[in-house]
Amino acid sequence: MPEFRKNIITEEWASIATERAKRPEAHIISGDEVLGIEHNSNCPFCYGNELLTPLEISSVRNNDSKPNTEGWQIRVVPNKFPAFDKNGKFDKNEKNTYAYGEAEVIIDSPHHCQPPSLFEIEQIELLLKAYKERYDFHKQNKKLNYVLIFRNNGKSAGASLPHPHSQLIATPVVPPTVKKEMNGAEKFFNENEKCVFCHLIEEEIKENKRIIAQNDDFIAFCPFASFYSFETWIIPKFHSANFEVITESQLKNFAKIYKITMFKLHKGFNNPPYNYYIHTSPLQENCDKFYHWHMEIIPKFTFPAGFELGTGIFINSSVPEDCAKFLNSIKN
Amino acid sequence: MPEFRKNIITEEWASIATERAKRPEAHIISGDEVLGIEHNSNCPFCYGNELLTPLEISSVRNNDSKPNTEGWQIRVVPNKFPAFDKNGKFDKNEKNTYAYGEAEVIIDSPHHCQPPSLFEIEQIELLLKAYKERYDFHKQNKKLNYVLIFRNNGKSAGASLPHPHSQLIATPVVPPTVKKEMNGAEKFFNENEKCVFCHLIEEEIKENKRIIAQNDDFIAFCPFASFYSFETWIIPKFHSANFEVITESQLKNFAKIYKITMFKLHKGFNNPPYNYYIHTSPLQENCDKFYHWHMEIIPKFTFPAGFELGTGIFINSSVPEDCAKFLNSIKN
Repeated sequence: MPEFRKNIITEEWASIATERAKRPEAHIISGDEVLGIEHNSNCPFCYGNELLTPLEISSVRNNDSKPNTEGWQIRVVPNKFPAFDKNGKFDKNEKNTYAYGEAEVIIDSPHHCQPPSLFEIEQIELLLKAYKERYDFHKQNKKLNYVLIFRNNGKSAGASLPHPHSQLIATPVVPPTVKKEMNGAEKFFNENEKCVFCHLIEEEIKENKRIIAQNDDFIAFCPFASFYSFETWIIPKFHSANFEVITESQLKNFAKIYKITMFKLHKGFNNPPYNYYIHTSPLQENCDKFYHWHMEIIPKFTFPAGFELGTGIFINSSVPEDCAKFLNSIKN
Repeated sequence: MPEFRKNIITEEWASIATERAKRPEAHIISGDEVLGIEHNSNCPFCYGNELLTPLEISSVRNNDSKPNTEGWQIRVVPNKFPAFDKNGKFDKNEKNTYAYGEAEVIIDSPHHCQPPSLFEIEQIELLLKAYKERYDFHKQNKKLNYVLIFRNNGKSAGASLPHPHSQLIATPVVPPTVKKEMNGAEKFFNENEKCVFCHLIEEEIKENKRIIAQNDDFIAFCPFASFYSFETWIIPKFHSANFEVITESQLKNFAKIYKITMFKLHKGFNNPPYNYYIHTSPLQENCDKFYHWHMEIIPKFTFPAGFELGTGIFINSSVPEDCAKFLNSIKN
């Protein structure tokens, strides 16, 4: 039967098109980029081309190497084409205003086209630590209220360069998607004295139909009311509203589940295009009790059309239980 | 300067990436389909293949022709792959429920691949009348609360068949996008005793920088705080919350501005992929005072990536004033 499923966080409906559900294999497409090329002499993110980017903001590098030269493992640089700018002033009461904010690129590794799904665990840890370090940095700036870290994998998911990179934007504005989650979570908390995300995790564990991976600190699953085919969440099993307060041992477990999850998607769909982003609390608001940070991974198998744009309801052409089953069949 | 513009209806910010704005010409791409083929013997929407679709629900046809045979100008059939089904019951209190509703396809014309942008005015009038007729029909059903009519033009905008067709879905659920506009419009009305859409039209006429076409009843413009490149709205200049109460003479003016607007987009961008949809009031709620129906046309020049999915804020890589200027340079 065609089904509507309610997202218990936002109370939005997802439409699960069971009647025209595609088999997981139908999504297997050729990855956008040729894997395996270690170095490209024209790539601004490759060793030797450090001066093709704006000067680096921070980096993880060998002790004996100098900034803006080779020898780094992770490199953070300003976005050369920023949609936000740190000069000027944001005025929320104006009908148009300066887009104050920060825009950074986090170069995930020196390797020209090895996606994080194939990284060694140590490199994933460095990447997630870099994410945390940038949150900690921007948290100091009282003019900002939100940091979003996201990653576009593959051209058709919006990556303008094949060299693996993540992005960060920091703005005075809390993103509407996060605001929607916060409002729903606060409502649920007021009604149930419980975090709605913790409740969701309990339900997923109880039903045990959509889980992809678990360890002591984290769980990965295809949410019951997914908007997108093979949408996958990684979320801490412990309650925590803020990503950046993650401890060292929790970060190691985050890296482990990240590797398993990303590898399954990679192997299952031949390095598919995808977007991911971390949803965490605003910088200047206290949502400790009711919000719960998490990473949402959205493979780019479908695009919104007239129905989705017109309604804001998404037709998911895969059943989340089938997605989890398929991903579970892929062994690391 | 990178700019944030506020949508005065929903109070959402659009990010106008002035620094990396593309020239309009950069969007000119090859249309998806070969134009000019009048008939395709394999197409279920072409003359002679009427029995390849489910039996027709309604049609505009020559007096001497029979249902489900040739001789029609517009044909409405059930969607063969519906995301909604009229059997079963929707229960909004359940966490998953039957996707009760209707899903119809409106075949825009017998011509195999002539888009509405090239239709004679009489055919556009028939099409818009068919939209109205379907609204009137579904309004009788008290289990429904919303009718959305939309159109996907071109494969990359989600059209599964090249033969021009519109779609209709009718559900018990008011779409979140419409709910957001309704909430904003009600708030504005309570604060200002005025329809926010009427106010927006006045502002657009006063500024006179983003208007594409006007007649006695309608205006078409690229909204000040557009989310998308070349986003274009057609909206009645008279206050009206419900599309389906449109009079015959108003419908003629709607057809005229529709033709001018669609032709400019067609000629400017070589039959670009686009989505459009009509936002009107819910069937069972009275928003007469504060809501105002309109058509939103979204050319498919960009796709949401990690930033857009993660934030819900859209980076528009074109400046709406430039879009209007470009479209105004195209003569019908």
